Amino acid sequence: MDLINWDNLIDSAMTIGGQLLLLIIVYLIVAPLGKKAVTSGVEQTAKRQKLSEGRTKTLQNLLVNVFTYVLLFFFIVTFLGILGIPLGPILAGAGIVGLAIGFGAQGLVTDVVTGFFILVEKQIDVDDYVTAGGHDGIVEELGLRTTKLRGFDGTLHYIPNRNIQVVNNHTRGNMRALVDMNIGYSENIDEAIRVLQNVCDQFTGDERLKAGPDVVGVQSFGSSEVVLRVIAQTEKMEQWGVERDLRKAMKESLDEAGIEIPFPHHVVLNRNEQ
Amino acid sequence: MDLINWDNLIDSAMTIGGQLLLLIIVYLIVAPLGKKAVTSGVEQTAKRQKLSEGRTKTLQNLLVNVFTYVLLFFFIVTFLGILGIPLGPILAGAGIVGLAIGFGAQGLVTDVVTGFFILVEKQIDVDDYVTAGGHDGIVEELGLRTTKLRGFDGTLHYIPNRNIQVVNNHTRGNMRALVDMNIGYSENIDEAIRVLQNVCDQFTGDERLKAGPDVVGVQSFGSSEVVLRVIAQTEKMEQWGVERDLRKAMKESLDEAGIEIPFPHHVVLNRNEQ
Amino acid sequence: MDLINWDNLIDSAMTIGGQLLLLIIVYLIVAPLGKKAVTSGVEQTAKRQKLSEGRTKTLQNLLVNVFTYVLLFFFIVTFLGILGIPLGPILAGAGIVGLAIGFGAQGLVTDVVTGFFILVEKQIDVDDYVTAGGHDGIVEELGLRTTKLRGFDGTLHYIPNRNIQVVNNHTRGNMRALVDMNIGYSENIDEAIRVLQNVCDQFTGDERLKAGPDVVGVQSFGSSEVVLRVIAQTEKMEQWGVERDLRKAMKESLDEAGIEIPFPHHVVLNRNEQ
Amino acid sequence: MDLINWDNLIDSAMTIGGQLLLLIIVYLIVAPLGKKAVTSGVEQTAKRQKLSEGRTKTLQNLLVNVFTYVLLFFFIVTFLGILGIPLGPILAGAGIVGLAIGFGAQGLVTDVVTGFFILVEKQIDVDDYVTAGGHDGIVEELGLRTTKLRGFDGTLHYIPNRNIQVVNNHTRGNMRALVDMNIGYSENIDEAIRVLQNVCDQFTGDERLKAGPDVVGVQSFGSSEVVLRVIAQTEKMEQWGVERDLRKAMKESLDEAGIEIPFPHHVVLNRNEQ
Amino acid sequence: MDLINWDNLIDSAMTIGGQLLLLIIVYLIVAPLGKKAVTSGVEQTAKRQKLSEGRTKTLQNLLVNVFTYVLLFFFIVTFLGILGIPLGPILAGAGIVGLAIGFGAQGLVTDVVTGFFILVEKQIDVDDYVTAGGHDGIVEELGLRTTKLRGFDGTLHYIPNRNIQVVNNHTRGNMRALVDMNIGYSENIDEAIRVLQNVCDQFTGDERLKAGPDVVGVQSFGSSEVVLRVIAQTEKMEQWGVERDLRKAMKESLDEAGIEIPFPHHVVLNRNEQ
Amino acid sequence: MDLINWDNLIDSAMTIGGQLLLLIIVYLIVAPLGKKAVTSGVEQTAKRQKLSEGRTKTLQNLLVNVFTYVLLFFFIVTFLGILGIPLGPILAGAGIVGLAIGFGAQGLVTDVVTGFFILVEKQIDVDDYVTAGGHDGIVEELGLRTTKLRGFDGTLHYIPNRNIQVVNNHTRGNMRALVDMNIGYSENIDEAIRVLQNVCDQFTGDERLKAGPDVVGVQSFGSSEVVLRVIAQTEKMEQWGVERDLRKAMKESLDEAGIEIPFPHHVVLNRNEQ
Amino acid sequence: MDLINWDNLIDSAMTIGGQLLLLIIVYLIVAPLGKKAVTSGVEQTAKRQKLSEGRTKTLQNLLVNVFTYVLLFFFIVTFLGILGIPLGPILAGAGIVGLAIGFGAQGLVTDVVTGFFILVEKQIDVDDYVTAGGHDGIVEELGLRTTKLRGFDGTLHYIPNRNIQVVNNHTRGNMRALVDMNIGYSENIDEAIRVLQNVCDQFTGDERLKAGPDVVGVQSFGSSEVVLRVIAQTEKMEQWGVERDLRKAMKESLDEAGIEIPFPHHVVLNRNEQ
Repeated sequence: MDLINWDNLIDSAMTIGGQLLLLIIVYLIVAPLGKKAVTSGVEQTAKRQKLSEGRTKTLQNLLVNVFTYVLLFFFIVTFLGILGIPLGPILAGAGIVGLAIGFGAQGLVTDVVTGFFILVEKQIDVDDYVTAGGHDGIVEELGLRTTKLRGFDGTLHYIPNRNIQVVNNHTRGNMRALVDMNIGYSENIDEAIRVLQNVCDQFTGDERLKAGPDVVGVQSFGSSEVVLRVIAQTEKMEQWGVERDLRKAMKESLDEAGIEIPFPHHVVLNRNEQ
Repeated sequence: MDLINWDNLIDSAMTIGGQLLLLIIVYLIVAPLGKKAVTSGVEQTAKRQKLSEGRTKTLQNLLVNVFTYVLLFFFIVTFLGILGIPLGPILAGAGIVGLAIGFGAQGLVTDVVTGFFILVEKQIDVDDYVTAGGHDGIVEELGLRTTKLRGFDGTLHYIPNRNIQVVNNHTRGNMRALVDMNIGYSENIDEAIRVLQNVCDQFTGDERLKAGPDVVGVQSFGSSEVVLRVIAQTEKMEQWGVERDLRKAMKESLDEAGIEIPFPHHVVLNRNEQ
Repeated sequence: MDLINWDNLIDSAMTIGGQLLLLIIVYLIVAPLGKKAVTSGVEQTAKRQKLSEGRTKTLQNLLVNVFTYVLLFFFIVTFLGILGIPLGPILAGAGIVGLAIGFGAQGLVTDVVTGFFILVEKQIDVDDYVTAGGHDGIVEELGLRTTKLRGFDGTLHYIPNRNIQVVNNHTRGNMRALVDMNIGYSENIDEAIRVLQNVCDQFTGDERLKAGPDVVGVQSFGSSEVVLRVIAQTEKMEQWGVERDLRKAMKESLDEAGIEIPFPHHVVLNRNEQ
Repeated sequence: MDLINWDNLIDSAMTIGGQLLLLIIVYLIVAPLGKKAVTSGVEQTAKRQKLSEGRTKTLQNLLVNVFTYVLLFFFIVTFLGILGIPLGPILAGAGIVGLAIGFGAQGLVTDVVTGFFILVEKQIDVDDYVTAGGHDGIVEELGLRTTKLRGFDGTLHYIPNRNIQVVNNHTRGNMRALVDMNIGYSENIDEAIRVLQNVCDQFTGDERLKAGPDVVGVQSFGSSEVVLRVIAQTEKMEQWGVERDLRKAMKESLDEAGIEIPFPHHVVLNRNEQ
Repeated sequence: MDLINWDNLIDSAMTIGGQLLLLIIVYLIVAPLGKKAVTSGVEQTAKRQKLSEGRTKTLQNLLVNVFTYVLLFFFIVTFLGILGIPLGPILAGAGIVGLAIGFGAQGLVTDVVTGFFILVEKQIDVDDYVTAGGHDGIVEELGLRTTKLRGFDGTLHYIPNRNIQVVNNHTRGNMRALVDMNIGYSENIDEAIRVLQNVCDQFTGDERLKAGPDVVGVQSFGSSEVVLRVIAQTEKMEQWGVERDLRKAMKESLDEAGIEIPFPHHVVLNRNEQ
Repeated sequence: MDLINWDNLIDSAMTIGGQLLLLIIVYLIVAPLGKKAVTSGVEQTAKRQKLSEGRTKTLQNLLVNVFTYVLLFFFIVTFLGILGIPLGPILAGAGIVGLAIGFGAQGLVTDVVTGFFILVEKQIDVDDYVTAGGHDGIVEELGLRTTKLRGFDGTLHYIPNRNIQVVNNHTRGNMRALVDMNIGYSENIDEAIRVLQNVCDQFTGDERLKAGPDVVGVQSFGSSEVVLRVIAQTEKMEQWGVERDLRKAMKESLDEAGIEIPFPHHVVLNRNEQ
Repeated sequence: MDLINWDNLIDSAMTIGGQLLLLIIVYLIVAPLGKKAVTSGVEQTAKRQKLSEGRTKTLQNLLVNVFTYVLLFFFIVTFLGILGIPLGPILAGAGIVGLAIGFGAQGLVTDVVTGFFILVEKQIDVDDYVTAGGHDGIVEELGLRTTKLRGFDGTLHYIPNRNIQVVNNHTRGNMRALVDMNIGYSENIDEAIRVLQNVCDQFTGDERLKAGPDVVGVQSFGSSEVVLRVIAQTEKMEQWGVERDLRKAMKESLDEAGIEIPFPHHVVLNRNEQ
């Protein structure tokens, strides 16, 4: 008997060789086909969703990368498996490490998944004024992992996308300007509404305005004041300017008409000590 | 002995071929049958639940997609398994990656599951005024992943469905208008109730009202005021208008009847320094 | 040697056929028996727990469905297993998908489990006034997944059962009406208690009342007032009406008896600037 | 060669038959023995822990049930395993479903485990006044899954045991009554303490009291008052009554002794406008 | 050929018998040795850590129990494994149940682990005054699962050890008494400090005090008062008594020295209406 | 028959030897190649991202370490696997330990992953003024596990990177200075704006300013004051200085112009006791 | 045929014996080498990080213990595996128990991992004044599981290291003293700053001070006061003493210069009832 059984060796080498060949051929066919499929799939979706070109590129890169890594992983694992290198324990061991990393990296995946949908659903655009992750600001940059907001005071907020749950976009459509004016309890409400509506009417034609402003009525009773509410619909980002102008004009009109904007009132009962 | 055992090879090729054939036949039968079953199942459920056609379409697409992907997955796995390509390690490896992704994508699945039930249970309709995920607004769009609300100030809220736990729908049935009027401690309560009820009676016939308004009685004692509560049932979305009109009318009636709406009262005991 | 070993094939076909036959027979016996067992089991439990018929139906449907799906699952898996189709990788693969879905659908299962116990333990009935999941309201509908409450202002709350942890049911047994009346520090407490107790006694015979009302004593000292507490036990949902009537009556009695309900008091020491 | 190898079949049938027989014998021995062991074990523990009979019954039922289900599960699994029905995939499949259910039912298990310890450690008894799961109330019913509290206002709280973390039992041993009395800054503290201690002494002999009441001294300085604290130890549930009586008596004594209970004081510096 | 192969049967019976014998011998050696090792190990650790005898007993019982159950578990599993009863599926099945239970019982394990360390690290002793799990109180009982605190108002708090995260032990070493005294803005600070320090000096020799009391200086400026802080170090549990005595003495000394403890001050500019 | 089958032994030794040789050769090729690839990969990325040299070093060290440990792990596992030492149970056992550790060490991995991205995305630089993990401060050191901030009061904050979610960087670009000035209700708003704008104009040329300051208008109505807002854009970290200077200058100008900065106003209605 | 096949038995005994021998030899080589490697590795790291000797010892003990237990675990598992005792089920069973324990003990591992890094990164030293886990205090003891802080009031806080997330160390470098002084609106700001700066200058040379104190300007406008801020840099732990001294000196200087520290101001408009 020979020390080495050449027949068996050659035999199994042939088998293994054939399998490897098959594997490589499959890989060489699947890889470019898959990439093309991913690329054109994104493109068509982008066209249908009317995504900008930059956004389409970002998504294509992401998905082609994911596809390549997954394919490579399967290729290597199968390759080693065919060579008969015991993969079970390696993968089991990797599993343990992987679990620890998986827990740690979980946030990263959540970032990308969330970022992906923010991009695709066009919830946010650069230069939008939004509230996200507990911070207000103008969007400076949209990333798959991080979104950057420039806050009103100039601070740059780096918000991991996982922290973005509800997005409040303040630049999708018209905004509402709202001013509450206080008048005294002893004033005539009809008269006050007439005065305020006059002011509102002077704003007609202001190009920042889409509708109104109008006095909607008695909103509430304060401890010393009757609150009248005025509402207008404005171009986006113009609501604060309109509110400031409305406030100034209405205050001056009430003064002119002699209608009191009341300070806090107290009734004092002076009693002598018993 | 031959280098290659042709008999064995052909033999196993035959076996494998037969199995593959069987698999493909099964697939070709199951796939269209399953799709039809899903489609008609949704249709019948939709009819029973009186879902709109758009909603039925969305659900059919979702479920046919899920069915197709699951079937495809099983087909590929079984196909490779029959070819003898070692699937164990691949799937184990995929498991690790899958776990990390699973954790990350968990939110996505939760979104779709929640969205599915919001659709099926008709908790929300477009143009409903709802509170969901911490935000108020008119529903602009209902999606499987995201619900869009238009807030009162014009902000567009993108709410991932997972953030929607309790849905408060303010447009299902009539709403209640509620106005609290304060009168002085020295006023006659019966008289005040009579005056307010008179105002309420003038509102009879207002088409925005379903019932009331009525004075229900002394709600509480404030530090300087007795609080009388007036309640009415209104058409949905009309409650604020009714409240504003009620407030104005009742304030004017109390003034006319000489019943005090009190400012905060203080008893001051002037004492000389010891 | 033949290409195909017919003996072996027939032999194993026989074995497999026998196993399949056995399996189908077992299934045909177990399925109807199991359904009957579940149905009658629920019925008996329902009788013992005095559940309404509708509730029993809901539970029977739920449990028969669960039983059928579980049995079907086992049947299919065993069937394929006997046919020798490699189930391991399929199930392993399904496991990964299943895990992701499991995490996402976890809430759904929690909903049903919680809903099941709310039904069985009769914590809530339609038309009960309850607090659950952070919302008050009258129960409009009880479901396995969602509970619908009609809030006081008319809003319809859809509460997934998982959000219901502690249920506060305000319509199980009598409720307590509680009114705190303030009197001045200079008033005689005994006299005031006598006056208030007189009012309480006039309520005797009111059919909304189960016990009391009674003055329980000096509850606390405010900065300007002594607080006397009055308590009564009422029919459910009548507590607010009783409280309103008590408040009005007691306020009028205190006025009549000349007992002060004090405004906030301040001692002012007027000092000249140094 | 025969189509069916009768020898082998009989041979293996014998082996299987023997194993099944052994299994059934083991089961018939273990089942009653185990139940007896569980029952008597609970009884002995109950005696040692002085549990009431009802409580012992509840625990016995629970544990015998758990034991029976576990044994049955093992019996069925082993039975099928001996018959050679491929259990691996079934159980693996069940594992996936089980996981999803496990997550959902996790709360249920937590309920029972927590309920078990609340029962065994006698943290709560029916009619105790406790705080648990964020709610106060008298315990109406103690269950393995749910604890029912009757709140002060009559509401019935259904608290899943999982929501019970810290139990605050207000009816284990004596309670403390605590009253803070304010006196003016210009009063003599020693004199006030003497007056209040006199009141305290009049309560000696009150059977609701276990110790005190006693004036412990100057607790704090308010903006306009010196706070004196009086403390007593009372029978459980009597603390509120004692506090109310103490408050009334001490207020009247301070009035009698001419010691001021001060209103909020302010020093006002009247200045002429510059 | 015989129906039963006696040779094989005897042969394997011999092998199994031998293995079982070996297993039982190993068990009989390991069990008592292990118990002794655990017992003496705890004893030595207890000596080194100076644990009380009762505490040592508790720990010994716990660890011997854990050891016995683990050993028994391994014994049974190995025993059945040698007998050839298919354990895999049983354990897999048990795994599913175990997982559900594991999640539910997780809190229990956390309780014991935390309780173990609270005992060993002597963080808490019976009769200590501690804050733990959000509740203050005197420790009444220390358990492996639950710690019982008697709150100041007499309530008995059952705190599962898992709820104990940070333990604040108020009876380890001396405590600090702290009194803030307010003086008027027009008073001489040096004079006031001198007066207060005089009071402090009178407390010298008080056996409740370990150091001080001393005036540390101007702690802050209130809207109407300058705040002076006095600090002392006291025996544990005596801090409140010392603070009460200090408060009384210092108030009386300031009065005597004619130093104002100011009421809230306001400058009022009386203006005529325009 | 020999006791030992030398042929087989030598035969398998040869096979094993060959496999080990192959493994070592693969390792010796992969290790240096991999390190070089990692190093140069980081370098190129760093160049593209314009990272500082120190930062590049830190990242290279991290990634080379990770690569080395992973390779070593695979090498050892494969080595032992080839030697035929049963790795399955070892790894399974390790899995249990690993899981417990994995949960515990999860935070550590999260720290490093988060730290990695903070470094690569340059969210923070040493000497930046940032808000992170709930603390403000100047960055003193950037680590993969911990970030050190020097707080305003001198405290050194050690913030594990996992606690850093949203980073607010206050030193990226210009900041905004914002001052609100109150004027009396009776003042002329136009006049006040003119005075304040004059002050703003005097700041023109201040090199700390990038734009403004400017009066933007009536921001809101207080109970006794009209609020005018002034905004400027400043160099980073200069906003507080600019605000302080603006406040002083504007207050002095308003005083000069005789425009009232109002104290809280109250209307007092003196009433005689009834 | 013999009942027992002696040849086989001896043969396999030889094989097993050889494997065991190999295992023991490997163990005897690896154990001391590993310990030495760990010990010297820690020592070198400690030297590089300049850790104190006690700290190095603690870390060496920890790591040698971990190494020993892990090695022992692998030794036992491999030993039993070679003996052919079925380890799979044992480990699987242990896995279930282990999982439950793992979840429970997870906190313990987190404690040690966090404690390890607090030690190595020297975030805390004994006698440092730190804020950690929601509590302030002087560090009394640093442990791998628990950190003990002595709070200001004398309480000893036992903080499990897992509860320590962000560490705020108040004794790393200089601290900042900060005093806000209020002056009246009618005072000259320049004059007041001059007076306060004079006081600051008198503190020059105080050895507790590292820089300043200096008046930084007008910090804000209160309702009745202009707030001036004074800042100084002090030795650690001296900031409170410096602040107290600064407060006293600055108050006395303002009094001397006749600059008002204002009480709350109110403008009162006395109106006659309509």
